[in-house]
Amino acid sequence: MESNVTLQETIESLLKNKKYASLRDILTTMNPVDIAAIFEEIQDEKMPLLYRLLPKDTAADAFVEMDDETQQFLIQSLSDTELKEVLDDMFMDDVVDMIEEMPANVVKRILRQSTPEDRKKINMLLKFPEDSAGSIMTTELVILRPDMTAEEAIKRIRRTGVDKETIYTCYVADNLSKLRGIITIKDLLLADDDDKVKDMMDTNVISVNTYTDQEEVATIIKKYDFLALPVVDTENRLVGIVTVDDAVDVMEDEATEDIQKMAAITPNTDKPYLKIGIFDTWKSRIPWLLLLMISATFTGMIISSFEDALATSVVLTAFIPMLMDTGGNSGSQASVTVIRAISLDEIEFKDLFRVLWKEIRVAFFCGISLSAAAFAKVILVDRLLMGNTEVTIAVALVVCLTLALTVVVAKIIGCCLPMIAYKLGFDPAVMASPFITTIVDAVSLVVYFLIATNILGI
Amino acid sequence: MESNVTLQETIESLLKNKKYASLRDILTTMNPVDIAAIFEEIQDEKMPLLYRLLPKDTAADAFVEMDDETQQFLIQSLSDTELKEVLDDMFMDDVVDMIEEMPANVVKRILRQSTPEDRKKINMLLKFPEDSAGSIMTTELVILRPDMTAEEAIKRIRRTGVDKETIYTCYVADNLSKLRGIITIKDLLLADDDDKVKDMMDTNVISVNTYTDQEEVATIIKKYDFLALPVVDTENRLVGIVTVDDAVDVMEDEATEDIQKMAAITPNTDKPYLKIGIFDTWKSRIPWLLLLMISATFTGMIISSFEDALATSVVLTAFIPMLMDTGGNSGSQASVTVIRAISLDEIEFKDLFRVLWKEIRVAFFCGISLSAAAFAKVILVDRLLMGNTEVTIAVALVVCLTLALTVVVAKIIGCCLPMIAYKLGFDPAVMASPFITTIVDAVSLVVYFLIATNILGI
Repeated sequence: MESNVTLQETIESLLKNKKYASLRDILTTMNPVDIAAIFEEIQDEKMPLLYRLLPKDTAADAFVEMDDETQQFLIQSLSDTELKEVLDDMFMDDVVDMIEEMPANVVKRILRQSTPEDRKKINMLLKFPEDSAGSIMTTELVILRPDMTAEEAIKRIRRTGVDKETIYTCYVADNLSKLRGIITIKDLLLADDDDKVKDMMDTNVISVNTYTDQEEVATIIKKYDFLALPVVDTENRLVGIVTVDDAVDVMEDEATEDIQKMAAITPNTDKPYLKIGIFDTWKSRIPWLLLLMISATFTGMIISSFEDALATSVVLTAFIPMLMDTGGNSGSQASVTVIRAISLDEIEFKDLFRVLWKEIRVAFFCGISLSAAAFAKVILVDRLLMGNTEVTIAVALVVCLTLALTVVVAKIIGCCLPMIAYKLGFDPAVMASPFITTIVDAVSLVVYFLIATNILGI
Repeated sequence: MESNVTLQETIESLLKNKKYASLRDILTTMNPVDIAAIFEEIQDEKMPLLYRLLPKDTAADAFVEMDDETQQFLIQSLSDTELKEVLDDMFMDDVVDMIEEMPANVVKRILRQSTPEDRKKINMLLKFPEDSAGSIMTTELVILRPDMTAEEAIKRIRRTGVDKETIYTCYVADNLSKLRGIITIKDLLLADDDDKVKDMMDTNVISVNTYTDQEEVATIIKKYDFLALPVVDTENRLVGIVTVDDAVDVMEDEATEDIQKMAAITPNTDKPYLKIGIFDTWKSRIPWLLLLMISATFTGMIISSFEDALATSVVLTAFIPMLMDTGGNSGSQASVTVIRAISLDEIEFKDLFRVLWKEIRVAFFCGISLSAAAFAKVILVDRLLMGNTEVTIAVALVVCLTLALTVVVAKIIGCCLPMIAYKLGFDPAVMASPFITTIVDAVSLVVYFLIATNILGI
């Protein structure tokens, strides 16, 4: 998150020169998100001072948007009363998110400033597994009764709505808290005053359980274009909602995680790139590098076992990188496409044969095109232009045949492995480029040497 | 998008047996998104019949969610009156999206059924460049005047709101259509009846231009947790809004495009994987495969030029795949991380040296860990266990030194290239794994042979 450098400098210089009235004026015009960005860049000791200049209603909103370190520093410099004010203005899911990142002593202070009722809610929310609907839901929502009229419902919203994260979708529950239907503010406003909620509400409510995975929650919100999705407990009692802004964050994090896994990195989306420490970055990368390095030695063993063939015809070695790279790239194209299609719910395991049939045909055409290009290049450039007499027509044939076969095998492996991983309950994203490359490398070399020994008779 | 197969079969069998009353009951309980999924799977000739069973208010909503082919087939079988009803219920941005995918004769029919005013709007929207805010915005929105009271505003919304895509955020414009402020339904409902809109509205409105790139629009909506973002023309006149559900689609498409580019595929997010033809898939993959194949031949040329060294010490060849793969993987990790951080606005070009310094330190530790592991493996497994006497301590040293250097160089190239591409106005995502791999391959081989010839004296 970048804020305008010039504004940052202006604010810092106004702070230095104690121009508090002007500072207050500037801050009043700003969006809480941009204010948070300013706080993240400012010197620590000036932070509490600047924070106290914020308009009351902006302070909590800006606080929520700050990163953990800034929040922690601010909490430590706020008085108990000030901290209580901030907490009262925050939504429950934001408080829980914050608590999860804070050290124990700060958590204790936060809980001490919360009402017993809030403490109970916080403890309940903290118990849900990470990445579950329960862990990202908010418990602030407008609950209407089926027997209310539109007028009564709007009155209820006006009376209680100020504390709720979203009042745009209202949930209708009976007196046992069972979810009966949903109704939007739009429907209520456009209805006659006497229309009953139960006659207007939509009873086909799509809801999730507190233990539903957050990725599924985001997918549902995206699929149905919801602004919020209700969350129920195991007895179908309404306990919270997940709002679209949280779903957007989940989607973005899941995409980042997929991208990281595809590049053989243990996912880490808690912090932005520059805030992750060297050791943590090393830790998320080294296991995969080690594993892939060990796997690559098998490829080396294949080369070793054909050492005699290579010694007789050293020219074959020169084509190894091209064959390995093209195989790896072909396989990656297939695997990454399939992994993304699985993520987007476009394909499932039962489509395996349709996917395979498609990839085989694509691979066939790619293989032919690449072989033709490679043959022309080997003959025209390597043999005629560079005058390398070791490059015979037979060698060119070996290379092109290997190339075509490798591309087909690579695409087959590339599309099947992620789908099989998905079926077995593993994350398909891990079956991306690096793994496919390692496997395809080995396959392409075996194919190469087998064809070479047969055609060239070495 | 997958719908429940059993439900699909039930509906088809009810259709076959002409149980229209039951069908209508089932369809009434269903969400338009799920109805659309059923239509996409059903036999063409039954489609118009089933469509006519849909409740009026659901028909248009379901129609919008269908894919192009299903929409086109339905349009061709609807009467002019029926088509007009659907069009009247659709939002302008959805009509334009649909028109963009239809053949000319269908477009003409659609335009003939639209009011002259709508035709004018459609033509205006069609003129905006693809991927611009103008092309994804909707022109239906609630506009309030600054002098209205809360009561008048709510009345206005109740009177006109039914046609608007979102009434949750209302826009305040003066009589020249200039955007003056925004106010949410929440604020209006929670205000006193006599409170003036101009006193309550937020005048620090964040808006975009019709020509703003849709990716920027989505980023703003995500950053500020907006439900909608106003779009103004060059004279600051309010012309439309982009809603969060469209922003979510843009974000998802952009992530898919980045993932495709990183895997050396020309992006294609118009259709789901299985609906893209073989030829189109081939076309999006073959140029990159060809380009990368040609580049990889340079790596081959490096090997050729060290042919004599290889002939004297063939054991060196066995380590080539491991060195190339580890280099490629190290570089990909850095490049993919940096590309994603650029996409998420976490870093910019001015952070180049901070990024570089971080990657160099990470590379240093990765290089040392990998070299240590490789040294142990080469000595223990290759030399002692497999009894390969060609693998001397000197050879192990050459391999490990190359490995450490390659990792450092790979990470430096991996983090710098995307940032430089970004600075020069190219897409950083193209600088991902395949390109980095090709460059790092060449570098690692040169380093390998230089170290080998010096240490081993060959």
